[in-house]
Amino acid sequence: SDLPAQPLDERLSLTRAPFAASRKAYIAGSRPDLRVPVREIALSNGETVVVHDTSGPYTDPSVSLDVRQGLPDVRSRWVADRADTEAYAGRLRQAEDDGGRDDNERIARLRTEAAALQRQPRRAVSGANVSQMHYARRGIITPEMEFVALRENGRREWMRDYIGDAEREQRLRGDSLGASIPEVITPEFVRQEVARGRAVIPANINHPELEPTIIGRNFRVKVNANIGNSAVTSSIEEEVEKLVWSIRWGADTVMDLSTGRNIHTTRDWILRNSPVPIGTVPIYQALEKVGGVAEDLTWALFRDTLIEQAEQGVDYFTIHAGLRLPFIPMTTRRRTGIVSRGGSILAKWCITHHRENFLYTHFEEICDIMKAYDVTFSLGDGLRPGSAADANDEAQFAELRTLGELTQIAWRHDVQTLIEGPGHVPMHLIAANMAEQLKHCHEAPFYTLGPLTIDIAPGYDHIASAIGAAMIGWMGTSMLCYVTPKEHLGLPDREDVKQGLMAYKIAAHAADVAKGHPGARARDDAMSKARFEFRWNDQFALGLDPDTARDYHDETLPKDAAKSA
Amino acid sequence: SDLPAQPLDERLSLTRAPFAASRKAYIAGSRPDLRVPVREIALSNGETVVVHDTSGPYTDPSVSLDVRQGLPDVRSRWVADRADTEAYAGRLRQAEDDGGRDDNERIARLRTEAAALQRQPRRAVSGANVSQMHYARRGIITPEMEFVALRENGRREWMRDYIGDAEREQRLRGDSLGASIPEVITPEFVRQEVARGRAVIPANINHPELEPTIIGRNFRVKVNANIGNSAVTSSIEEEVEKLVWSIRWGADTVMDLSTGRNIHTTRDWILRNSPVPIGTVPIYQALEKVGGVAEDLTWALFRDTLIEQAEQGVDYFTIHAGLRLPFIPMTTRRRTGIVSRGGSILAKWCITHHRENFLYTHFEEICDIMKAYDVTFSLGDGLRPGSAADANDEAQFAELRTLGELTQIAWRHDVQTLIEGPGHVPMHLIAANMAEQLKHCHEAPFYTLGPLTIDIAPGYDHIASAIGAAMIGWMGTSMLCYVTPKEHLGLPDREDVKQGLMAYKIAAHAADVAKGHPGARARDDAMSKARFEFRWNDQFALGLDPDTARDYHDETLPKDAAKSA
Repeated sequence: SDLPAQPLDERLSLTRAPFAASRKAYIAGSRPDLRVPVREIALSNGETVVVHDTSGPYTDPSVSLDVRQGLPDVRSRWVADRADTEAYAGRLRQAEDDGGRDDNERIARLRTEAAALQRQPRRAVSGANVSQMHYARRGIITPEMEFVALRENGRREWMRDYIGDAEREQRLRGDSLGASIPEVITPEFVRQEVARGRAVIPANINHPELEPTIIGRNFRVKVNANIGNSAVTSSIEEEVEKLVWSIRWGADTVMDLSTGRNIHTTRDWILRNSPVPIGTVPIYQALEKVGGVAEDLTWALFRDTLIEQAEQGVDYFTIHAGLRLPFIPMTTRRRTGIVSRGGSILAKWCITHHRENFLYTHFEEICDIMKAYDVTFSLGDGLRPGSAADANDEAQFAELRTLGELTQIAWRHDVQTLIEGPGHVPMHLIAANMAEQLKHCHEAPFYTLGPLTIDIAPGYDHIASAIGAAMIGWMGTSMLCYVTPKEHLGLPDREDVKQGLMAYKIAAHAADVAKGHPGARARDDAMSKARFEFRWNDQFALGLDPDTARDYHDETLPKDAAKSA
Repeated sequence: SDLPAQPLDERLSLTRAPFAASRKAYIAGSRPDLRVPVREIALSNGETVVVHDTSGPYTDPSVSLDVRQGLPDVRSRWVADRADTEAYAGRLRQAEDDGGRDDNERIARLRTEAAALQRQPRRAVSGANVSQMHYARRGIITPEMEFVALRENGRREWMRDYIGDAEREQRLRGDSLGASIPEVITPEFVRQEVARGRAVIPANINHPELEPTIIGRNFRVKVNANIGNSAVTSSIEEEVEKLVWSIRWGADTVMDLSTGRNIHTTRDWILRNSPVPIGTVPIYQALEKVGGVAEDLTWALFRDTLIEQAEQGVDYFTIHAGLRLPFIPMTTRRRTGIVSRGGSILAKWCITHHRENFLYTHFEEICDIMKAYDVTFSLGDGLRPGSAADANDEAQFAELRTLGELTQIAWRHDVQTLIEGPGHVPMHLIAANMAEQLKHCHEAPFYTLGPLTIDIAPGYDHIASAIGAAMIGWMGTSMLCYVTPKEHLGLPDREDVKQGLMAYKIAAHAADVAKGHPGARARDDAMSKARFEFRWNDQFALGLDPDTARDYHDETLPKDAAKSA
């Protein structure tokens, strides 16, 4: 067949294989449609280890999936039960949404198939606010809050023996560096954290396929993977496959950073097939709509793009509203100027028009859109340093303080808010980043890219940045945006995505252990015990990447006998 | 040809290729035979960047090399000029030195060829002490001290523009966390640091091929690579090739951890072809000599092994003298008991005989051997934790305090001393390791294995440990022993060695930047400038691994035009 769907199905079948010795299980919530996924690992000594599972229905062989239909519905009932939203016709589709060009039959077909994926959009009824923060502040515990509480705890019964040694627990107890991590996460604790803005649950009401997750310093550190096609190299099919591949290897959220053509259609495919929150940078699409000419951007066009994406179900938007006109001259003495793509676009607009950033001047209008769909802000750091040399400079911190002001405005609208952070920061300057962010942004969750600790490791920037990511995660960052080995060099392929995720799952877990997240160490203890007892198959199964561990072992000692000896 | 030499020559020719845009240069010292190697990188904009170079004569195309002859002599004149040593017949070769078995014609031939590599051993004349520490304490600046001073500084003229911005230098200045790093390293500063034991220059008088390096908290953080054959899988040729490969990718020292057969012959090949200090764990060979039966070890046999290896030119010995009999019961409640191979051997001996560790009871006799050849102690941590669960426990710290006592004894003999450290330590417990080591071991250089920050990443332990290594390097550790992706799974091959080194060069450099080593950031700045100006070839050349950076770039944008655009 010459149909494009076939390769995609083939690719996905590979990523649906169960993990070694593992099966999907669910923790039951207070209502029948609230089931929290976990992965159970059956060890050879009879123990069962239960771990966090971001892979969605893809790793549940009992679920029949068709990427042309999208994932099963998880939460449209939860939304409907709140009786504060309405279905509506939605914005009219425009040719520019996909870049204005029908380039070939293949894309046309994908677009038609994507049309079949369309859900009728919903929005808040007039005057309503459907954000999780708004419910939390009114004292309401939503199913989403209960879901993430159960998910954070996991199924901890198996840990009992591992955490039973008082001397060891005392010796290894974490140092939370000011976080307030409870022994057990209750739905009420989640509600409190969301209400005070210290955590977010990105969950657009138009993303019913979502298995919600929580991002905040008192919860497990999360990892984001960036995917996204570009006009040059990749296809919609590849991006859907990268999504599934990313969540298999532990991505808690995924950002679709597509540029070039077919952005709208790509996003349909991604959202309808994603059990994790999807983030975007709407200015990328807006720029495509004006043919790549930054100075032609307008508030009206940008606003329309936000609504377009909110209707599709995007869970969080990167909005570079803190890049103010007066800060731009602060970058002139930098080694590497403005390296954020969104930042560059907006700086160009501001300079050309000699006007304040329209995202800043229209910020409250953006808030009105966010709360009608419950899209979470990810306030972008358009002035983040592009090299160690530019770390912690005047421009970076001026923007960070502005993000703090904007956080206060967003919170007045009960809009959930993340703060984006660098980027490139030497180890000894990381603590100041975290301290400034906590101070000026009032503990709104910090979401950093790395940071890279040095600049001389192209090809290995996932490692150079995992060092910074682990440290800043320990210090209080809530989500770590991965960096792949291709950073600064090219677009990540499937293997790069996996390598980036492995480095960042390590960083996030190292941070959780250091902070003392309850039970974080137990999987390590199970591994260490298996190691000491030479239970090789159990070691593979307990690892972040069972396949690679087994392959490496078998290179030296390929005999089956060597695995249980 | 069926000769084994051919494949080795072929392999080595690959590792003799010059780096991209690079050439070997030398900094002239105060005497004609004192020439310090550096690598000059010629950028496309006319700048020349000069970097530290551990690769020895292998990357100097003007030097004709034959691994069957060994490397050119660097420093036998320096030793001879001191007129405190004598050549002597040396210990009689014994069949057990190579495990007592002539297994085939190939090994016999290698042994014959290795015999051609033999240098007549030297030792201190009666009553003399030839350690660098002894000279330093008598106020003598040796050529070795001058060499390392020039090497630490490098050729810094090129940095002028990069470090010329006062605001930037102030903003990015390092935080040395108690180290005392001067702007310029003078030979006199080196002498002082060696005299007080805060740095070591491992430099056996029987290793004349050595290009000396200094290990101490006020100098650039160093990286060690472990190689070593095992009876199961590898060959002498492979190990020599791994040595050359390791120093190409930045290993400052190499440990030969060979076990099984042909240990003596392997070491001949390695030492005669190594421009970097070689370390060993002599108990490994001693154990082979008693057929692997730990309880049959004796002081006499061990002493003889030390002399055997000292005569060959080993620069530092791991000696597990701190593992005392009373500490062994402290490990019984551990998750992973005793995981150090040397530690396990000695614990078994102690328990079987109900006697104190013979390395502890004969420690001053060992000092007498060390100072006759200038072998540096690397006091081993036989009780290091084998899992995060065992980090910072009573057993580990009891041994560390003993290592501090032994350091004082070694220093009374003017014997240079390193202290080995863990291993497996979660991030939040790393600082205590460093603090305890500084306190109890009086700033003797710390030499850690990682530490690994989590246990659940088999296949990626180079990353899990690079995080800990970077942090402890910043805090004051002087040398980082690499961990490869095969850690806990199998023996590293050539590619694993490179991956381990890349991760650790990143960690060491991140630490140098954080500590504020003078000029450490300049190469990063040159990279960032090349990046901002889209000088792709310069970016590749400035990176730790030009080959991989170029390959990754070319996967997406293979056109030559894209490299200068």
